[in-house]
Amino acid sequence: MRLSLKPSLDPTAYRFCHDLRTRFAETDAMGIIHHGAYPAYLEEARAAMLRDAGFPYDGVRDGDLGVDFAVLELYVRHRRPLLFDDLVTVHVVVDDLTRTTFQVGYLLTVDDVVRATAVTVHGAVDGRGRPARMPAFLSGLVGPGS
Amino acid sequence: MRLSLKPSLDPTAYRFCHDLRTRFAETDAMGIIHHGAYPAYLEEARAAMLRDAGFPYDGVRDGDLGVDFAVLELYVRHRRPLLFDDLVTVHVVVDDLTRTTFQVGYLLTVDDVVRATAVTVHGAVDGRGRPARMPAFLSGLVGPGS
Amino acid sequence: MRLSLKPSLDPTAYRFCHDLRTRFAETDAMGIIHHGAYPAYLEEARAAMLRDAGFPYDGVRDGDLGVDFAVLELYVRHRRPLLFDDLVTVHVVVDDLTRTTFQVGYLLTVDDVVRATAVTVHGAVDGRGRPARMPAFLSGLVGPGS
Amino acid sequence: MRLSLKPSLDPTAYRFCHDLRTRFAETDAMGIIHHGAYPAYLEEARAAMLRDAGFPYDGVRDGDLGVDFAVLELYVRHRRPLLFDDLVTVHVVVDDLTRTTFQVGYLLTVDDVVRATAVTVHGAVDGRGRPARMPAFLSGLVGPGS
Repeated sequence: MRLSLKPSLDPTAYRFCHDLRTRFAETDAMGIIHHGAYPAYLEEARAAMLRDAGFPYDGVRDGDLGVDFAVLELYVRHRRPLLFDDLVTVHVVVDDLTRTTFQVGYLLTVDDVVRATAVTVHGAVDGRGRPARMPAFLSGLVGPGS
Repeated sequence: MRLSLKPSLDPTAYRFCHDLRTRFAETDAMGIIHHGAYPAYLEEARAAMLRDAGFPYDGVRDGDLGVDFAVLELYVRHRRPLLFDDLVTVHVVVDDLTRTTFQVGYLLTVDDVVRATAVTVHGAVDGRGRPARMPAFLSGLVGPGS
Repeated sequence: MRLSLKPSLDPTAYRFCHDLRTRFAETDAMGIIHHGAYPAYLEEARAAMLRDAGFPYDGVRDGDLGVDFAVLELYVRHRRPLLFDDLVTVHVVVDDLTRTTFQVGYLLTVDDVVRATAVTVHGAVDGRGRPARMPAFLSGLVGPGS
Repeated sequence: MRLSLKPSLDPTAYRFCHDLRTRFAETDAMGIIHHGAYPAYLEEARAAMLRDAGFPYDGVRDGDLGVDFAVLELYVRHRRPLLFDDLVTVHVVVDDLTRTTFQVGYLLTVDDVVRATAVTVHGAVDGRGRPARMPAFLSGLVGPGS
């Protein structure tokens, strides 16, 4: 288990925010957002952060030599359920960068109330899933920023 | 973080096995099963174990007084990717039962090769998501059995 | 088969537009957005149109006397694939309103290029899925508007 | 619209049956299986039929010169909802084969009661989504068989 990052409950500990609205398709028969929907929420927020930071996705889209970040580990803690039509703010921060992996912490809030925290651990891979060199720009994304 | 169970890589440490076949819908553009599909795999195996143990789902289906097991925490470690059309064996074991929670460990294998391990932490809730008494039969499910 | 609406390729034949970005989780091993993701796209756009028109979702969320629109039929025609990270405009129009059903037409475009058309047929149901009276406000949503 | 196949309500009009169990992850807040889950059900049944008929999936899995069947059109008619834990029989038949497309009809039943019918229209493509020659073996799969 490489997972070491402890996601903060304090939004100021995060670098980036991404808003998304829950879908009815993501609800379940208990009337809440099914826990299986959260990995896609985290990924959407991570992709938004990387897009915002100028990371090119063309490699993955074209199947050529680009770099993507494979998910090695995933941890989600559900504190309060999300409901249909909730406007969720996903706070994102990169941390614990090594030569082969980095971790991303997440705080999910609705109207400033915490709903969940999460961590993903990633390794760099090329478009076919083989290990690749960690892009240099990642070191500039570590921590909450200034 | 309540998560404490360490999922074993030894299939004999598990009580129950469930086989499922990966779907093409669950692949992603990297050519592997997307990590977002795993929570549903774990849930399907958990449901199969509970069905096998005689646990009635009627409560959740009818929205009445039945008990379901809300997911409080989820952890997945991806060791080798799953591919489309893989026949996956999900090994399942219940452990770390307390008065309010229990944990489930998982080992995913294909042809006896480990692909992933996982843990979920659960609390008992009624059909509307409110905390409920932990069903007594759970204590009989703890550990790998004899 | 109640399906009768012919979705136009002309964006001006639609009343409402909703933008969404495709998710990596929705891609498949052919490198495109899996066709199974489209029903959720249509639903998200339909929900956005109804939210914009002032339709209250509280009924479905609370499981009480509110009205939702069950999907009776669904038709999708894929003209060009969607890719990861595409910003998709979903054009929406309501038509063919009867006392028990209505139809919704969709045109999906990326940078003004058509990717798919679709139709859903709906009936009004209450929070438990039983048939309900068609809300009066729907007649004001029919057609592309002025 | 190429869709022309009219799916029969008579199980004997189909060539192949595939059983699957609905997942809790596929339910929605109305307490039924969300309509967005059906395309994956149809695909799973179609894949099972092709596997049974000896169709090799290696091309799609390896990204090389194999052939897959892209979904050009999809139609689903929901007659009665599916619920969690239902054991669904998906009846499948191939028909309306042309030089570039073929259609697949589906009948979904639970305990011999009809829940839904569906049709998909397919074109042959290679592992990168480009049009490919229709495999000869398909003509042997047309109709309900003897």
